[in-house]
Amino acid sequence: MNIATNPGSGDFAARFALTKEQLLARRNAKWSQYAPDVIPAFVADMDFAIAPEIQAAIRTPVEAEDYGYPMRDGQKADRAVAAAFSRRMARLYDWQVDPDLTLVLADLVQATFAAVMAFSEPGNGVIVQEPNYPPFRAAVADCGRHFVPMPMAMTDEGYRFDLAELEARMTPDVRILILCNPQNPTGRVFSRAELEALLAFAETHDLVVISDEIHSDLIFDGRQHLPFGALGLRAMARCVTLNSATKSFNIPGLRTAVMSFGSADLKDRFECRFPSRVIGSVNTLGIDATVAAWDLGDDWLSGLLDHLQAMRDHMAARIRAEMPAIRFRAPESTYLCWLDCNDLGIEGSAFDFFHDEARIAFSPGENFRPDAAKMVRLNFATSKEILDEVLDRMVAALRRNAR
Amino acid sequence: MNIATNPGSGDFAARFALTKEQLLARRNAKWSQYAPDVIPAFVADMDFAIAPEIQAAIRTPVEAEDYGYPMRDGQKADRAVAAAFSRRMARLYDWQVDPDLTLVLADLVQATFAAVMAFSEPGNGVIVQEPNYPPFRAAVADCGRHFVPMPMAMTDEGYRFDLAELEARMTPDVRILILCNPQNPTGRVFSRAELEALLAFAETHDLVVISDEIHSDLIFDGRQHLPFGALGLRAMARCVTLNSATKSFNIPGLRTAVMSFGSADLKDRFECRFPSRVIGSVNTLGIDATVAAWDLGDDWLSGLLDHLQAMRDHMAARIRAEMPAIRFRAPESTYLCWLDCNDLGIEGSAFDFFHDEARIAFSPGENFRPDAAKMVRLNFATSKEILDEVLDRMVAALRRNAR
Repeated sequence: MNIATNPGSGDFAARFALTKEQLLARRNAKWSQYAPDVIPAFVADMDFAIAPEIQAAIRTPVEAEDYGYPMRDGQKADRAVAAAFSRRMARLYDWQVDPDLTLVLADLVQATFAAVMAFSEPGNGVIVQEPNYPPFRAAVADCGRHFVPMPMAMTDEGYRFDLAELEARMTPDVRILILCNPQNPTGRVFSRAELEALLAFAETHDLVVISDEIHSDLIFDGRQHLPFGALGLRAMARCVTLNSATKSFNIPGLRTAVMSFGSADLKDRFECRFPSRVIGSVNTLGIDATVAAWDLGDDWLSGLLDHLQAMRDHMAARIRAEMPAIRFRAPESTYLCWLDCNDLGIEGSAFDFFHDEARIAFSPGENFRPDAAKMVRLNFATSKEILDEVLDRMVAALRRNAR
Repeated sequence: MNIATNPGSGDFAARFALTKEQLLARRNAKWSQYAPDVIPAFVADMDFAIAPEIQAAIRTPVEAEDYGYPMRDGQKADRAVAAAFSRRMARLYDWQVDPDLTLVLADLVQATFAAVMAFSEPGNGVIVQEPNYPPFRAAVADCGRHFVPMPMAMTDEGYRFDLAELEARMTPDVRILILCNPQNPTGRVFSRAELEALLAFAETHDLVVISDEIHSDLIFDGRQHLPFGALGLRAMARCVTLNSATKSFNIPGLRTAVMSFGSADLKDRFECRFPSRVIGSVNTLGIDATVAAWDLGDDWLSGLLDHLQAMRDHMAARIRAEMPAIRFRAPESTYLCWLDCNDLGIEGSAFDFFHDEARIAFSPGENFRPDAAKMVRLNFATSKEILDEVLDRMVAALRRNAR
């Protein structure tokens, strides 16, 4: 099961949504990177206070000034994160993950780079869905691999990939498929049938599947997330699952993530290339926050999902009614919406237009696909007030532009 | 200049030393790893509360629940650590370090492993002082390099290395010299003449010098630390300096360190092997704590040095008077003392003897040199009360053993 939305609760925003004044007082990228009159709707930070259970877990070592080499449960503290991940996967998906096959590291970007380097050689090909989370493209390029796109095409059923088309692009040097599920920025939650097809494809081409599931807690409309590894032993034999509490629980600055190998053989291959200590150690507060999020954060998360789903629906309704030329699919997951602005008649990039004319900072579409400069990614993880201000500014800027 | 000791202040222990009850309530390795009746004197954690300036810097984001992707001074937050390192090196040593040549990463173990992998190939030799910080040996072995020992021999002047002897061990495949200065566990602070000799040796054999200077803030008796890179451009051309506030300011769980390349060429060579994002990102609280330590921590550090020097002298006097068969040199730096127990007539390892008979957990000597099972490393960064209990227990156990 996933964490259910809780439409009756309704008070998440009242309890946790932060005001613009509170947000501007912070020192994080979302509210600092652009001028103060620009509303940020880009980086995957949410404008909410964190779960009280996480804050309590952080306060405990802070009050004790307990910043020594941490231990938890009689082991090096990072093992507590691996154990909490296993507990959560068993509880939510009935999926058994061996904590001894889980490395704990700083973030998914590090994990992606390391996995690309460990499971392929320079010059090899790496398949990445497109549009994609920009660091995936960087991981392929910076590591000297070549990028094999798997387009997410907009169809009548929403964004879909086409394995026949991908088959035509395959060369024998392709070693890795980076799967992002739920997919950023399209918000797709892949079905069992789609994942089974990907597994068969990966088997045919002997690919390692790096499955980024960082948005798996943020699923709407009663849909189910299915971890790729939970497809069974065949999937486990070739997959490395990446996850973290930082995205869904809004603690990215605490830098704690997991890289869970489906088999001892995969972990051995990885450690041959990266002795575990070259990956670095995680910090006490990230460890305690992550364990609290995964073990104790369900109530907050349930309220968050309710709020995010309501914001998604509100945003979708207003765009359809007031900016019908913007093409989009309401996301099945994530708090990110991929907006196609090709029909708006704007000059230059969609990012620049909205930045300059509406004082909104979206994520530029071209970061997700080089030819997508007329697209942007909108982050709707905010209060209704701020989201309405974003939409109001968009409408007004488009109205001025149409004159 | 170094931070001066401040012998007049005297109240450091009264303000910052923690009691056994406070320490046992913590969840760090030092006070959790062994049974509660064992006094820990092993891992390099100190039994003191941290500098109030650091605690204030940690509390600011914690009170604001500001755990988003951090920015500081209009840049990605890790740049603030690189800038603070440059400011500190300029202030303390008149040494100019370009922050753009400084990477920020989790810890020195990660940095050492990564540097060994980047600047040598499997099968190459790596010179390490012996006895040595155990992860250096692991970095050489785990990365498939071979270990070239540079013995620190006890002479009439204290621990000294012998480059003529090292010359005889050299083979053409040796690529790296790992320098630990001040040296753990002998506590040596190398002189300019010694460092100049090492530089000449490194030039002769075209070695990269990885200079671990993590204990450089903890120098006694008015001695001066001299960063290897501060020898000048010849040194900079072949050195990578590792440092961190975590050791001298007692915040190892916050996982923040720097790896500062002496030249753009060295940084390029490193990043060829390790694209920067495979190294991972550092966390908000470690960043803020490190900047506060380096910019604002001098008063606390000065008091700490006063206390540590007094504890060193007290320990040395008691060992000489009450356990004269233990051979040692009072360290010139660090809060660690390397004790030679070969003449105590104990069976088995010195670690086991003191653990079993005195209920003290030292660091086992064999971790620092394989043939040093009759040696231990003592951590004297504690209150006089706890240090006296350690010494009392040692004396009593040796007395019982002599019967």
